[in-house]
Order: sequence, then structure tokens, then C-alpha cells
Amino acid sequence: MFSLNTVWDNVDKVRGSGPVVHSITNYVVMNSTANALLSAGASPIMAHAKEELEELITISGSLVVNIGTLSSSWIESMRLGASIAAANYKPVVLDPVGAGASLLRTETAISLLEEGGISLVRGNASEIMALAGTGASTRGVDSCNDSSEAEISAVALAKKYRCTVAVSGCIDVVTDGKTVYNIKGGSEYMPLVTGMGCIATAICGAHLAICEDSLAAAISGMGCMAAAGGLAEVASNGPGTFAVQFVDALHNVTENDINRLVEVRVV
Amino acid sequence: MFSLNTVWDNVDKVRGSGPVVHSITNYVVMNSTANALLSAGASPIMAHAKEELEELITISGSLVVNIGTLSSSWIESMRLGASIAAANYKPVVLDPVGAGASLLRTETAISLLEEGGISLVRGNASEIMALAGTGASTRGVDSCNDSSEAEISAVALAKKYRCTVAVSGCIDVVTDGKTVYNIKGGSEYMPLVTGMGCIATAICGAHLAICEDSLAAAISGMGCMAAAGGLAEVASNGPGTFAVQFVDALHNVTENDINRLVEVRVV
Amino acid sequence: MFSLNTVWDNVDKVRGSGPVVHSITNYVVMNSTANALLSAGASPIMAHAKEELEELITISGSLVVNIGTLSSSWIESMRLGASIAAANYKPVVLDPVGAGASLLRTETAISLLEEGGISLVRGNASEIMALAGTGASTRGVDSCNDSSEAEISAVALAKKYRCTVAVSGCIDVVTDGKTVYNIKGGSEYMPLVTGMGCIATAICGAHLAICEDSLAAAISGMGCMAAAGGLAEVASNGPGTFAVQFVDALHNVTENDINRLVEVRVV
Repeated sequence: MFSLNTVWDNVDKVRGSGPVVHSITNYVVMNSTANALLSAGASPIMAHAKEELEELITISGSLVVNIGTLSSSWIESMRLGASIAAANYKPVVLDPVGAGASLLRTETAISLLEEGGISLVRGNASEIMALAGTGASTRGVDSCNDSSEAEISAVALAKKYRCTVAVSGCIDVVTDGKTVYNIKGGSEYMPLVTGMGCIATAICGAHLAICEDSLAAAISGMGCMAAAGGLAEVASNGPGTFAVQFVDALHNVTENDINRLVEVRVV
Repeated sequence: MFSLNTVWDNVDKVRGSGPVVHSITNYVVMNSTANALLSAGASPIMAHAKEELEELITISGSLVVNIGTLSSSWIESMRLGASIAAANYKPVVLDPVGAGASLLRTETAISLLEEGGISLVRGNASEIMALAGTGASTRGVDSCNDSSEAEISAVALAKKYRCTVAVSGCIDVVTDGKTVYNIKGGSEYMPLVTGMGCIATAICGAHLAICEDSLAAAISGMGCMAAAGGLAEVASNGPGTFAVQFVDALHNVTENDINRLVEVRVV
Repeated sequence: MFSLNTVWDNVDKVRGSGPVVHSITNYVVMNSTANALLSAGASPIMAHAKEELEELITISGSLVVNIGTLSSSWIESMRLGASIAAANYKPVVLDPVGAGASLLRTETAISLLEEGGISLVRGNASEIMALAGTGASTRGVDSCNDSSEAEISAVALAKKYRCTVAVSGCIDVVTDGKTVYNIKGGSEYMPLVTGMGCIATAICGAHLAICEDSLAAAISGMGCMAAAGGLAEVASNGPGTFAVQFVDALHNVTENDINRLVEVRVV
């Protein structure tokens, strides 16, 4: 059973061990996810050239694959990267950005899942529902009162691909297909900053690198985001200052902050 | 006749309706324009893969095409995107970044205009002059005392392609080829932040999505920029803090701020 | 013999003359390096299309080549850009991001050096050691007490390619292969912000554009970084606020700040 102790232990372990996280990610968030990883104590590598993926993934602790700005040559790099990671026993987190919004995104995400090696999928409710095939997205899905639709899809997806699934939203949902956790915290500014979900995925990637259990890594990664979000909000006056304060918060967040700003519970 | 009321009405309408704005834009500004759109209340999509443009533009309210970091495959995506938008009656705003500085940029911008479907062109004075074919750029063009050269080019370009043209500068110029508006406001920090012109284009894109009249959308988009710039400057100590405060200002700007910080008048 | 006077003179000259700096750089840092250049008083161009490099480099004062996110078509653009710069007597600064970490990066950097026209190489200790062929990187290399290993590699590389070499670290090392300078200053937050090395390279590019002597340009570029880092740290509460304050500091740094925050000495 995981709890707030898991969150703090892994936050502290990332800071102490500085894991290398390789990202094949989208153009929009390369800078902000690299900064988030550095602030959290990890060491980011961003590279997509097929010629160098083997060398770079071999020295990394985990791989982040994010399909936010696809093109055919980048899809090839993502597939190659995931297969290299699998062959070298490096955990992979997939961010299926925009799955459901276009066939290219849905199919790319599903083919990556079918090919194996994905330890964790981190998306929002509509993306997870699209991959689980459990329904069209509705605005109501990301409700602060009811995360049940997201839970059903997350469990189905986790079972199908034998991975952990993390759904970010007003209430985060994390499941390995058996146990379902809800995580509360964060800030209302988070949906107003581009790439905040991609940052969650990257932070989960850092936690995967230092934690053998992907369920624990997802809970602590999302818990870290929730704590940093809560900490940053107090010092913010809008989405611009929030984004900056959030990076500071990833660096500064303490065990006490986690205990007062985050809630982790089994559903 | 448009006035400060138009600016506030459209700022408020963007916040209320959250239009989806699809961007095919340059690498430098993807993050900052996405954040500006989110702060203003819009919902950005950034994608360039030809396979998914039809699906994504169909669910968008407008399309932003920005030629800041060109390559041949991206030019194809821009052309395809503009033609999909035209076929689906979605307004398109073109940012001809660097037109006049290289033949590739000038020709790409002109070919997009020739192919039709562009509702609005938003550039700086030298870019608009290059497209209008009305002369070489000079430093004096972007004067705070005299926007007459920019006006002549903007009117010529608007007439030639039957579109609205917005020229950002110390005094902004907006015209449909018949009436010419000047907009005053903003901040001296704005030219010191990369992509501030691209952000203006993106914000105009959000206003196009909620406003049938492209002249009104350009006036309110540029007026929104002017107000947010003025609001941000007070809280800034340099271009770094200004860029952050500007994003906050897009989120926080009120009708009263617009009334005290912006001037809109027919020339 | 160069000193703090050189630093201030060149910082002031960049502000006064606003040199155009063309960058063929990586996706991660395009936005942050463009903003750093603008804040320092320079005028950035970011473009990689082979069709327009000749026109754009001809109107620039210097070229920055940064191999942070390589692919084959970008490598071709870098080679073409460097040859155009050489043919037009424009100084080139190379940032060999990740040299030593993959064969592709090491070989690309070395081939650019072999082909000639590089005035300055700006990297960290492990990158410079990889290019000089003087040993594997070790954590101890970037020590605050001992920069001797970095010095040996920098001198060897500078002699081999008849260029200036700048190694950023706790103590910066700058050498033309004959004289070795150490530069002290900066902030402990600098390694926690992505692209801070790339920004150093870009700022050195701006100094190269206004200063015929590449050794002086490297000293003043690195000195400017050291001063801005020291100035920013005082106003920061973590890596997020530091990154923002650093951009302000590039704009605001005075001769007095340089004198109190930076140390330049011949080793």
C-alpha cells in the first residue's frame, strides 16, 4: 500500500541520485520539461536521431516518449527508442498527447503499446478513454467531484497492456489494473500552463528511473506534481508566474509540503 | 466603427467560449504562444503532420500559420492547412516572419496569400512592406511619431489580397484596405522578448475564432496585446520578468485596464 | 592582456551596436537563447533552411552552431552555414552539446572543426575533453577547486584547430592555446537551468560579432554570463525564478556589477 511516504521517499531519491532521463518528446515542451527534470534533481537528455538512440538510452535510467508533435520520422525514432529501452530493461513512460483527437495520434499510441515495453501511460481523461476504447471524451470527465469514468478506462487500459496508467485531472487516478489510487492536490492554474501534463509525464519518468515498481513511481511522480502545484499557487498571480514558481517548487518542495498539500488514497 | 468596447467584448468572449486555435508555427515560439493562448482563455493545438491536419483543423475555430522556421516539409503542411481551413470556412491568420529578409520567406508568404483563404496578415512594418512591394525596410519605419509608411503598405496589401492587415509597432496599424485604425499602448519591453509578434498573431487567431469580422478581430487582438503589455510593464524589471508578467496580464486584464491603457482611433 | 575592462567594453558595445546573430541551434533552447540575445542587446535570427542560409548569414555579424538535437538534414544545414560564414568572413562559435555521449555528436563536432571556419568552441569539460581526445569525463572535472584537467584539454583543442576554446564550469577556462584565463562568478543555479551553456555560447556569438579578437570575445561573453548569474541569484528562490532573473540581469548588468561579481585572471 503506497502513501505520502512513498511520494517523499521517491522525491528525495531523485534528488539524491540524479537519474538520467532520455526524452523523445514534442517541440512545444522540450524546454519546460527539461527545466522541470533539472529542478526535480534529474538529468535530462533530449535526442531523436536514430543513429544515437542506442548509446544515449543505454546511459539513461528511463525513457519518456511523448507524441505531442508527430511526424513520420519522429514516430520511427519513438518506436526504435522504445525497443532499445525494452531490450536494455529501461522503463518507458508514454504520453499519448491528443490521442482521440486524430487517428495518427491514437494509432501511434496504440502501436507503441502493442509493441511492448511501456511501463506507464500518463495522459488526461479523454486520451486514456480513447486508448481504452471506452467512449468519447466529454467535458464532464475531468470533474472535481467524480473521477469514476476516468477510473474505468484507466483500469481497462492497465489490464490490457499490463502497465500502470496515470490519469491527471482535478483528481488524479493511478492504477495498475488492480488497485486504484486517487491523488488530490495541485492548482487550478495547472491546466492554464502548456505542457503541464507533459511535465507530469517527465517527472514520472524520473521516478521510474529510481523505483522498480511502476505503480509506486506513478503515485510519487503525480504526488510530486500535486505538491509542487500547491506550493507554487500561493506565490502566483496568474499562469505566467505560476509556471515559474512551479519550477522553483519542484526544487524546494519538502516532506512537510507533501504532507500538507497532497492526499493519496486507495479508492 | 470599432472602439475600446470591441476590444473588451472580444477579450471577454474568448474567455467565455475557449476557442480551439490550431497553429502551424515556428519552433522558437511554440511554447510561448501556446501559453499566451491558454492565458487568454483559448485552447491551443500545435500540429504539423499532414496526416492529421484535416481532423484537427475541423475541430478548431481558426488556424495560425507562422513561417518563422521554415523547411520544405513544413511549407507543404502550411499550404495544406490553409486549404483545409478555407474549405471548412475557418479563418486563417498569417504571420510572415522575416518576409523581405530571404526570398524563401517572401515567396512562401506570397504564395500562401495567392492561394487564398487568409483572413488576416499580422507582421511588422518591414515584413508588410516586403509583401506589399512598397519599398525596402528602414529603421525609421517603426517610428513612434510616424506610422505613415506602414499604413501605405498595409492598405496596399489589404486591397491586393482582400484581407485585413495588422502591423505591429510603436503604433499598431490595422486596416481592411478601406478604414485605417491606429492602436496605441503596450510596452517598450515588447521588442525585447522573442516571439511577441508571434504571440500577437496567435491572440488575433483566437479573436478571429470568435468574431466573424476580421477587422474587428485584428483590432481587439492587437488591443488585447496593448493592454496586457501596459499592465505587465508596471510589474517588470527587465525583459525576463516582463515576459512572465505579460502571460499573467493576458489572464488578468480587465475592461478598466483596456480603457486606461489602450487607445484605438481611426486615422 | 584582457581584464574586466574587456568584459564591460564588449557588453556595452553589444548594447550599442545590436549585432545580428544567426543561430542554427537545438529545439530545446531556441526560445531561451533568442531571449538572452535580445536582452543582451543583440538581434537573433533562427533559421535552418538551406535555401535561405546564404541571405541570412550575409546580413549577420556571426553564426552560432549548436548540435544539441541533431538529425541528418540539420547537420547538412550546419555544415553549409559554417562554410557560408567562412566564405563571408563571419566568425562562428560551435557548441558541441553532448560530444562524447554519442558518436554522432562527437563526429559531427569534429567534422565541423576539420572543415574550418570555427573561431570559438564553447562547451563543458566533458565535451571539450571528448573533442580533444584527452580522456573520459569524470565528475571531478568540473570541480570548484581544480580546473586543471579542463585546461589541458582546452589548450590541446585550441592548438589543434587554431581556435579559441571556452570551457564553462564552476571556474570557466578560456584559452587561445597560448594564454589561459580563468573566469569566476555566476551562480550555483546555472547548472539547474536547461540551456544555460547554450546561452553562454549565444552570448559569446554576440561578442564575436562586435570584437575581432575571438579570445577577447570569449572572455567578455563568459564574463557577461558570470556577472548576470551573480546578479540574478540574489533575486531568485529556485531555478525557475533564476532563469527569469537571469534574462533581466543580461539587460540590466552594469560595469559596477561586473567589477564586483566577476574575476578574470591569467592562469
